[in-house]
Amino acid sequence: MDSDILTQLPDRLVAEAKSLDAGDPLAAYRDEFVLPEGVVAYLDGNSLGRPLATTRDRLAGFVDADWGERLIRSWDEQWMDLPLQLGDRIGRVTLGAAPGQTVVADSTTVLLYKLLRAALTARPGRTEIVADTENFPTDRYVVQGIAAELGLTVTWIGPNPAAGVTVEEVETAVSERTAVVLLSHVAYKSAYIADLPRITEVVHAAGALAMWDLCHSVGLLPIGLDDAGADLAVGCTYKYLNGGPGAPAFGYVATALQDKVTQPIQGWMGHAEPFTMGPSFRPSDGMRRFISGTPPVLGMLPMQDMLSLVERAGTDAIREKSIRLTEFVIDLADDTLAPLGVTVASPRDPVVRGGHVTLEHDAMQSVIAQLWQRGVIPDFRRPRGLRAGMSPLSTSFVEVATAVAHLRAILREHQ
Amino acid sequence: MDSDILTQLPDRLVAEAKSLDAGDPLAAYRDEFVLPEGVVAYLDGNSLGRPLATTRDRLAGFVDADWGERLIRSWDEQWMDLPLQLGDRIGRVTLGAAPGQTVVADSTTVLLYKLLRAALTARPGRTEIVADTENFPTDRYVVQGIAAELGLTVTWIGPNPAAGVTVEEVETAVSERTAVVLLSHVAYKSAYIADLPRITEVVHAAGALAMWDLCHSVGLLPIGLDDAGADLAVGCTYKYLNGGPGAPAFGYVATALQDKVTQPIQGWMGHAEPFTMGPSFRPSDGMRRFISGTPPVLGMLPMQDMLSLVERAGTDAIREKSIRLTEFVIDLADDTLAPLGVTVASPRDPVVRGGHVTLEHDAMQSVIAQLWQRGVIPDFRRPRGLRAGMSPLSTSFVEVATAVAHLRAILREHQ
Repeated sequence: MDSDILTQLPDRLVAEAKSLDAGDPLAAYRDEFVLPEGVVAYLDGNSLGRPLATTRDRLAGFVDADWGERLIRSWDEQWMDLPLQLGDRIGRVTLGAAPGQTVVADSTTVLLYKLLRAALTARPGRTEIVADTENFPTDRYVVQGIAAELGLTVTWIGPNPAAGVTVEEVETAVSERTAVVLLSHVAYKSAYIADLPRITEVVHAAGALAMWDLCHSVGLLPIGLDDAGADLAVGCTYKYLNGGPGAPAFGYVATALQDKVTQPIQGWMGHAEPFTMGPSFRPSDGMRRFISGTPPVLGMLPMQDMLSLVERAGTDAIREKSIRLTEFVIDLADDTLAPLGVTVASPRDPVVRGGHVTLEHDAMQSVIAQLWQRGVIPDFRRPRGLRAGMSPLSTSFVEVATAVAHLRAILREHQ
Repeated sequence: MDSDILTQLPDRLVAEAKSLDAGDPLAAYRDEFVLPEGVVAYLDGNSLGRPLATTRDRLAGFVDADWGERLIRSWDEQWMDLPLQLGDRIGRVTLGAAPGQTVVADSTTVLLYKLLRAALTARPGRTEIVADTENFPTDRYVVQGIAAELGLTVTWIGPNPAAGVTVEEVETAVSERTAVVLLSHVAYKSAYIADLPRITEVVHAAGALAMWDLCHSVGLLPIGLDDAGADLAVGCTYKYLNGGPGAPAFGYVATALQDKVTQPIQGWMGHAEPFTMGPSFRPSDGMRRFISGTPPVLGMLPMQDMLSLVERAGTDAIREKSIRLTEFVIDLADDTLAPLGVTVASPRDPVVRGGHVTLEHDAMQSVIAQLWQRGVIPDFRRPRGLRAGMSPLSTSFVEVATAVAHLRAILREHQ
């Protein structure tokens, strides 16, 4: 770390950063990631997680052994079951999902499409999808596309002051017309955490299905899908699960629902007997029916390394560190950035705040370009947001302090 | 190579194998692949191509640099354009497609679904899809699924003696009701090569669109999509393009058609301005509109190494070697396996034969299990087929002779 830059901050806050690192029970995990010198501070682990050093060896070994030597035999030996085995592992380690309900496949967008279309087949008389304006764009576009092709209406919740969706808003929105409610667990902009269990209850009370986008919560906090009785979920593996750019998504369908729904992209890998290659499609029992094409094996490798880390650390401890990290960013912002015009656009109550903090300023777009040049890498969210995403296992408190110190130095020059 | 086993074959054929290798202008390429000792002969490169040794280093380097050091900045620096750049490269090196018509995305099945649905939007009054029974199962299942959801009829061509589809059969099948004709260029079982240019003409004469599955031809022979005036195509990158298990597919849409069609899975990466994250979907111009979710970057890496090899070797030279390889397998089979009850189920005319040869025998399933134990790896196709797929750049003639010698030894024991 560049320690000169820390003179931008009050001594008290620098000392606090060091003390927080010293007392952090998860601090040692950071050394397991690839940490190149040119990256001064990485605050975008909620967009693309850093790779683990073991992932480098895993991929090289994969080329030599599983692919290069076992060749086509690996399909029988391991790859055919990988989407379901890895799904079960994600379910156990991060989702609170019993086996047989989670599969890894496709991109998040394609899986959203498939599972939302599937969900609608379980509510044939109903004509409405409920979603909220704080959902990630691809969720909203998928909802609009499906509504247009099937002649359904979309009821939008928000925007609201919480920059996320509340139980009351959902209660008001749903009715006997509602087939499915699709919401983000953690809002991608504000980090607001929706009340997944209570909202699921409210959705069920209206006879509708609850489908959750877990992209910004999986690997960050305990989710408890089974306990909440959620119906379907989709999530991303390249954020807090460090699966690498464009790693495949996971989908969850509650056991009771699986054989009652039909997904639209029927392919050979979702067939009850893929290698019979018979004339007609017959869906497999259980989660395999949600697979369409040949599983993207290479893309499923890196996340396995991160799942091992998450399992060792535990999602409760990860959540605890995440709260400390976001709390510390807010303290730093209040003390050192607010006087320069920066405002906090994420919840101040940690109970409803996920793993990132959005800071706003009119000059943020050009400020972030300068930060990137210094090797300090947060995300920019239009029109004026800096999204500081702290992946708990790969981020230190001194790293966060260093990033804020650079931000402060640049903002001072702007004045 | 185990030279003892070659005594199973007449000296003349062993000498011919050696002479063919000695005279093979592409022989040296084989050394660029990962060639573990335990693999005695690999005849399944048309199902999963062998990795290149450079791929091992590319993946390890990717973890350290593009992903580990550039992190999220790589999206701006290279990944956002990768699906289109790589698509253009596949188009230039293998498809005979001008830039701006090919994209890499999704699995073959998902891309088949998206492009077939898209094609149908360009022929709104027409109510029929024509396909053939020799298409790969996933193609047939996708066709059936789309027909069911949209209320269309499917007209099936075949099965016929050629185990592939002829111009005359297509001419008889199409009518003013036909919206799209979806056929395989090279049949996955028999290796029969359909007459892509003339069939495309016949399809156009009926006012329908021609969509081609190129899974078993891409990288193996010159295709000439633009010259033939084909409308759409989908293909696989883990066979002759050695992209690794489950590598993403490519899709081709002719320029004139692109802005006239709508694909169903509208996601943020197909948006005209992905990072505006606006309220409504607006498709990008050109091929980007066929992308749905975040591109599977890791899965797009290995095929780049093979594309370099294919480009250096040239598809004409590759096709020439491929014909010699399949010719040699048929010669070996006629001379040494026919007396043991093996029949050739692929075309004998090389003009209509792709890169694999299917050999049939009632005991083939158990014979192949024994071959695998010996490190000789062809594919099994129910009920009685051994599919010998010779990827031209990674297969030698002595390798083929060795495989047939083992096959002969096992069949003799069976008698």
